[in-house]
Order: sequence, then structure tokens, then C-alpha cells
Amino acid sequence: MPADDPAERAVAGRVRLRLDLGYDGTDFAGWARQPGLRTVEGVLEQALARVLRLDPPPRLTVAGRTDAGVHARGQVAHVDVPGSTLAAAPGRSSRTPADALLARLAGVLPPDVRVRRVGSAGAGFDARFSALWRRYAYRVSDAPWGVDPMRRREVAHHRRPLDVAAMSRAAAALLGEHDFAAFCRRRPGATTVRNLVALDWAREADGVAVATVRADAFCHSMVRALVGALLAVGDGRRPPHWPAGVLAAAARDPAVTVMPSHGLCLEEVGYPSADRLAARAEQARQPRATPPRSCR
Amino acid sequence: MPADDPAERAVAGRVRLRLDLGYDGTDFAGWARQPGLRTVEGVLEQALARVLRLDPPPRLTVAGRTDAGVHARGQVAHVDVPGSTLAAAPGRSSRTPADALLARLAGVLPPDVRVRRVGSAGAGFDARFSALWRRYAYRVSDAPWGVDPMRRREVAHHRRPLDVAAMSRAAAALLGEHDFAAFCRRRPGATTVRNLVALDWAREADGVAVATVRADAFCHSMVRALVGALLAVGDGRRPPHWPAGVLAAAARDPAVTVMPSHGLCLEEVGYPSADRLAARAEQARQPRATPPRSCR
Repeated sequence: MPADDPAERAVAGRVRLRLDLGYDGTDFAGWARQPGLRTVEGVLEQALARVLRLDPPPRLTVAGRTDAGVHARGQVAHVDVPGSTLAAAPGRSSRTPADALLARLAGVLPPDVRVRRVGSAGAGFDARFSALWRRYAYRVSDAPWGVDPMRRREVAHHRRPLDVAAMSRAAAALLGEHDFAAFCRRRPGATTVRNLVALDWAREADGVAVATVRADAFCHSMVRALVGALLAVGDGRRPPHWPAGVLAAAARDPAVTVMPSHGLCLEEVGYPSADRLAARAEQARQPRATPPRSCR
Repeated sequence: MPADDPAERAVAGRVRLRLDLGYDGTDFAGWARQPGLRTVEGVLEQALARVLRLDPPPRLTVAGRTDAGVHARGQVAHVDVPGSTLAAAPGRSSRTPADALLARLAGVLPPDVRVRRVGSAGAGFDARFSALWRRYAYRVSDAPWGVDPMRRREVAHHRRPLDVAAMSRAAAALLGEHDFAAFCRRRPGATTVRNLVALDWAREADGVAVATVRADAFCHSMVRALVGALLAVGDGRRPPHWPAGVLAAAARDPAVTVMPSHGLCLEEVGYPSADRLAARAEQARQPRATPPRSCR
């Protein structure tokens, strides 16, 4: 186990916090901290450092390392902080220390990032390795007039009408454990084998077409490429079996359009019940199932 | 009837178009055209002038003259254009002229304004005077962590927890035809008598509290002041009967907070059936019921 492993650090008089958060990815260069760029991780670590008076800032571990422009409603992260944090946080007497911390974070975070819940993580909890699955949504308007102005930061536009039932049927052939190399930007040494658990399409109340995509983990650009392949079926440019053929070829296909990032949102991360957290984290660290650092 | 009355101008070889539209009010100085300011009316008139090659631009008449920062999903406007417009609009052969016009408007309008539907208006239709009612929504999050980042442009924040049932009960005492001077910015010569048909509160799926407010028409700042008065009941600062007492005083009360504009959205405008349009417009032009130019 490497020396900077969060689970290792948690041992020495520290407490592990679980943070549930959301963000509007529009003005962020993605999740991962990068020098000189505004990233969600960087902004959140600075906010925690300020509220908890920690220098250097604490390091976060996250379930889904979203790309630039991608949003999140159900992102989960953990952070190891001094054991006194939850006991000593100032605040109104009627508030729990966790509530006081939540309110103080709300006060220092910019409005495009919100931590919705903070609390002590269960024993063995690891935001990344304990996760059983990630669920993303991709939203597309095929209305001839464009995208609802109030939703234009989270809904992509498609110029041709979409048959969502046809897209769901084509998507069914992609489910299961496969090498998704055809839909991934390959990174050296990283596996592209994933277990795609769900991928189906529906219409929201206002007519926006939304793909719900759930897998154990995702490779880079995987959801956006899957959606691009299915849209080609949905608007009639490609036959229904085309995405499955692309998958079987197991090589990046330039005919697949990678959709723009702003239609993508990390909606939810699934974890096992508290008594199975540590076992899941151990299992996820094994070679095949390990989500490599490049994965989401 | 004044010479520039739209209904008058419609007579001479012109066709009246009804436009259904929405906008994100964040970056607009309201609906009404103002020299040197970016307004929805100004942007839309310029877009129509460009698409229809009209100089000077055609003049719009609108159902709800929204203030700076206020949004709309169900705004309705009309415009009188040369009779050839719907017959001669270019476009793909499979499209109707109205569809072609819709697509061309989508191409020239900025993404924060969308015309969702355009078509020939029924005989006697007047977007302002034929309207039976306007329905607005005001959205407030009372979550301690703030406002969902993806909705922060359309949801206001309130720092104290709200009892929506208590707010609905207090609102019920305000229904009916009253002089709403207590909740209006008074303008010389303009009546503040309005018929408030509905005002009730509910929670949306994500917990946001939303007030649904429907009246024949609204005075300036009326919805935002009504909401401000009800929030004082909802968070326990004022007793349930306080808003009704303010109403009865019939004078602007400085204790009423006028809520920020970005929580407000014009959701829908109601019109009578086609055979009653002209009669309604005639009735709405009578003194009491006339929505003055300052009204929404």
C-alpha cells in the first residue's frame, strides 16, 4: 500500500469525512487539481483548508474524476482530517458539528459548487474504491428550436429528431462486461474492460431525451462516445446494430462522434452497505476491477 | 383606437404571428426595449428583422413585460408582418413556412432566448389584451447548503427553513379581487386592483419550494413582494395573518421584502378559446381591467 494512501493516513488520529456534492462544470477545467487551472478539486480543497484551518490543504479522493465541462449532482468524495474536526467545529449550539461544517462550506464555496452533505464516513469507506457503480445522465434536446434557455448549460442539442425507443434497443446490445476500447480514449497500461449495467433512453417532462448510463466504472470519454454512437441510430443515419458492431471491433472508430461534455452529468454513485465497504474496496483494488486513474 | 395599435396595423395586408417563447433573464435588462440596453424585446425584434428582412424592425406586443433578471418559459408575444411572410419563407421543401421561420429564428437568436412555436394568430388575437391570466412561479431553496448549482440562475436562497403548508394557508387569505397597492410599486394613473386567482406553495422533487401565482395581471414587483411577505410566515418571523393585514392596509409596507428577480419565472399565459379572443380583448381594454403599461 503506498505511503500516501488515504486509508493508511486515516489511521493516525484522523477522521474520514464523506462529502456528497454537486457542481456546474461549465467554468471548471474538470475535477482533477491542475496547476493554474480552476478545478473542482482545487476549489474544494482550498475551501476545506480555509474552513478547517489546514495548511497544506487536505487531499480529496473522489468517485468520478469528471472531465472539463462535465457536471455532477451526486458526486462523492472523502477526505481525512484531524480527529478534532467534527468535535470542535464552531457553530450555533443547536447545530451538530457536521451541520456547522456544512454551513461554513456553503459560505466559502462559490455558487457553482455545493457540498450537500458531510459526515463521518463508515469504517473502511473509500469514495473511489468502495464504489460499486457510477450512474451518469446525458441530456439532448432534438427540438427544432434548440434548447430551453434555463437548461442550456446541461443539455446538448441534436439537429435531427431522435427515436428514443430505437436508441434503447440498440443500447441493450452493449450491456455486460466487454472491452470498451472502441468508445474509450486509450491510456497506456489502463484496462478498457468495463461492466455496463444499464444504458437506456427516456424523455423528461419537457421533452429532453436523457440517456441513463450505469457501469462499475467508465473509461475516458466512454459515455460521450456511447451516446454519439446511439444518436446515429436514433436519427436514422446508422442501422440499429451499428453500435454493437463498433463495440465488437474493439478499436477506436473515427465514425463515432464524441458528444460535447456539457450534456453529461454524474448523477449518483452506488456503495455497498456499511458492513461490506471494506471488502468492496479490497476487491476493487485487484487488477481487473481497479478503476485506473484515467477512469471515471 | 390609437394609430399605432397593433390590431389596427394588422388590417392592411399583414398577418399577425403568435410567438411562444422562453428566456433566461439573467443577462437581460428585462423585456421592454430600452436604448443601449440588452433586452429580450430588442433582441427578438432584431432577430425578426434579420430573418424577415424588415427595416425598420417589426414591433412586438407581449403578454408579460418581465423585469430585469426575470425568466420566462411560457411568454407569448404577437407581431404583425407582411402577409407574404408565412407563404414565402424559404426552407426545406418538407417544412411548413412556420417551421422554416422557427428554424431560422433558432439560428439567429442567442441561446438565452428561444422561440418555441410560431404560427398565424387567430382572428382578434392580441398577446396582451386577449390574455385571461398570467401564471408565474417563484422558486426558493431553504437547504442549509444553498442552491443546486445547475439551478442557481432560477432559484433564490432563503437562510431559514420554510413551512410551505403555513405559507399556502397564509396565501389563501390573499385570493380574490383586491387593491394590491401594499405589494406594488405604484405608478401614476395605474390601478393596483387585481384578481389573484391562485397562490400556493409546494416542493419540487429536489426540495425547492415553489410558489405558483396566477392572476388576471400583475403590478410591478407584485409577485416578488407577495413571496417576500409569505416567506416571513414560512420561517416563523411573522404570524400567519400578517400578509392579509398588509394587504388590507393598502399601502406599501417597508416591512415586506421584495425578493430578488432571479427566482421569478413567467410560466404560462392563458387565453380564451379562438371564438372568444376578440371579445376578451375588447373587455380587457375597458378601464378597470386594462393592464396598464406598467403591469406584467
